[in-house]
Amino acid sequence: MTDLPETNRQYHLAKRPTGEPDMDTFELVEADVPEPDANEVLVKTLYLSVDPYMRGRMRDAESYAEPWDVGEPMQAGVVGEVVASNHAAFGEGDVVVGNLDWAEYTAADGGELTAIDPDVAPVSTALGVVGMPGRTAYFGLLDVAGPKPGDTVVVSGAAGAVGSVVGQLAREAGCRVVGFAGSDTKTEWLTDELGFDAAINYKTTDDLSAALADAAPDGVDVYFDNVGGPITDAVFNQLNVDARVAVCGQISQYNAIELPTGPRKLGTLIQKRASVEGFLVSDFQPRFEEATTRLAGWVADGTIQYRETVTEGFENAPDAFLGLFEGENIGKQLVKVAERSE
Amino acid sequence: MTDLPETNRQYHLAKRPTGEPDMDTFELVEADVPEPDANEVLVKTLYLSVDPYMRGRMRDAESYAEPWDVGEPMQAGVVGEVVASNHAAFGEGDVVVGNLDWAEYTAADGGELTAIDPDVAPVSTALGVVGMPGRTAYFGLLDVAGPKPGDTVVVSGAAGAVGSVVGQLAREAGCRVVGFAGSDTKTEWLTDELGFDAAINYKTTDDLSAALADAAPDGVDVYFDNVGGPITDAVFNQLNVDARVAVCGQISQYNAIELPTGPRKLGTLIQKRASVEGFLVSDFQPRFEEATTRLAGWVADGTIQYRETVTEGFENAPDAFLGLFEGENIGKQLVKVAERSE
Repeated sequence: MTDLPETNRQYHLAKRPTGEPDMDTFELVEADVPEPDANEVLVKTLYLSVDPYMRGRMRDAESYAEPWDVGEPMQAGVVGEVVASNHAAFGEGDVVVGNLDWAEYTAADGGELTAIDPDVAPVSTALGVVGMPGRTAYFGLLDVAGPKPGDTVVVSGAAGAVGSVVGQLAREAGCRVVGFAGSDTKTEWLTDELGFDAAINYKTTDDLSAALADAAPDGVDVYFDNVGGPITDAVFNQLNVDARVAVCGQISQYNAIELPTGPRKLGTLIQKRASVEGFLVSDFQPRFEEATTRLAGWVADGTIQYRETVTEGFENAPDAFLGLFEGENIGKQLVKVAERSE
Repeated sequence: MTDLPETNRQYHLAKRPTGEPDMDTFELVEADVPEPDANEVLVKTLYLSVDPYMRGRMRDAESYAEPWDVGEPMQAGVVGEVVASNHAAFGEGDVVVGNLDWAEYTAADGGELTAIDPDVAPVSTALGVVGMPGRTAYFGLLDVAGPKPGDTVVVSGAAGAVGSVVGQLAREAGCRVVGFAGSDTKTEWLTDELGFDAAINYKTTDDLSAALADAAPDGVDVYFDNVGGPITDAVFNQLNVDARVAVCGQISQYNAIELPTGPRKLGTLIQKRASVEGFLVSDFQPRFEEATTRLAGWVADGTIQYRETVTEGFENAPDAFLGLFEGENIGKQLVKVAERSE
């Protein structure tokens, strides 16, 4: 067994935030390195994923994901290395992905871990382009929204982990692709490298509707919404008849204390016979392997490109999380916690 | 040929209203009784239908229905009697339904008229329970929303021409049915005569969400929305996982000068994996006969009950129209223009 350190740093939820979380939301705790029980595996965290949906788990409200308990470790997608195993399927040195603690070490039931082949792609991609965000893009675009060749597909949060994959899948489906993102660096990445037909920097654009009308002269057939708010209002103004809207996230209002208000747009849906559907990637669990396999193939052959924004050091995980709401990441936001063993 | 009067009263759109239409929106015009051309039929209006969607046709804006021209006759669903015919399919005395002018007499292409058998049901029902409103309920509930036995179905505008049929179809589909309506007379009609399980008078209820939570203790699986606004907000608060919302109308905001604002609720759709779909009955045209036949059967055997609010006199058609926005009607609002000939 690998030499283990004396202590294991964890982040606990210190208190439920009202409005924007800040550093007081998190407590860095020194705990023991856990001993794996029967069928458990001790995993050393290599990469920890921070994701916008985690804001919801900080609330004490009924939702699709259990609220985190105050004073207890939070959970995250983690890519880690097996450092001790009481489970037949895993041995020391294996690389795995699973939902573990915000911690340097977690003991987890082997049945809840998935092995990763580190020779296929960088192991971090199991948290991004071929992981939960990639699968979210895959099912949300292809199953929920259903793009057809010639459609115009609009994506908000287009330079994020999910949006950047959505746009490339839409491009491969023969669609015109327009993305909204929050910096020129991001919009240039979308158009110059990912093959988006147009991208709009929403932070420097006064009239989002007019900008979108220019970028999508034939109107909008599919909208993949990660953001909500005024961007979504602008897209609704340009929907075509029979448009489909897949609602994946509403990051613009996750930190709101009261639900923000905006123009009531349901009448648009009548005029356009349009549909809006919310979805959770977890509902597609029985087809995860299909998505992972296809996404990995597209990454391997260069069809899908990706970027990662990597924050170094476990202690900086809260910073990385908070940065999501400032749009600091391009592509998948990760926290690098440790190197793989030689 | 029947003796015809010297003049034919019509209502023209006098000007496009800003906000609420009023009597100045309409101009009563004396015109000639038209001469039917080849293949045309001269129809004497018996009943004229006023419907909320007509507010949209007063606007000079792109929509699913052509805007009415200022200074020209408006159109409406009309049940009328053939008083002269140049079309082989129709003879004097036949009762027909079609989209004709707001007028006492209209000459129309015979191909755009449908014969009604006056022995099957009162001819006025061709504008209501077995006409456009009934078909709207039929396709919107059964096709767009798709109720399943045991579902809780909520309808806004429940005592209107569409909503009252929606609720009864949902009851027949084995659902718990809850209606929102604007008077105790209406809510009593829904629960005491139409078999709704509960009905909420939204005008006398302070906390719509709480009232709905009481009336729909297992949450809401299907919402058929005729109204929009705060009622719809309250329903969104109670949606179940996999809920379906069919958006038929938004009467609460048809007279708004600027789009009203309200809480941004798209996040609810994610949590509940719910879908919202707008629809137009006209998109179901190829199946109108199916709907009409089934609705007529249900009316004949008493499965579906209906009421009509009848305003007497062609000159009072604008009043009848304006009353829709005050909720003055129970069931279908009609204008009775003339008696059938003996």
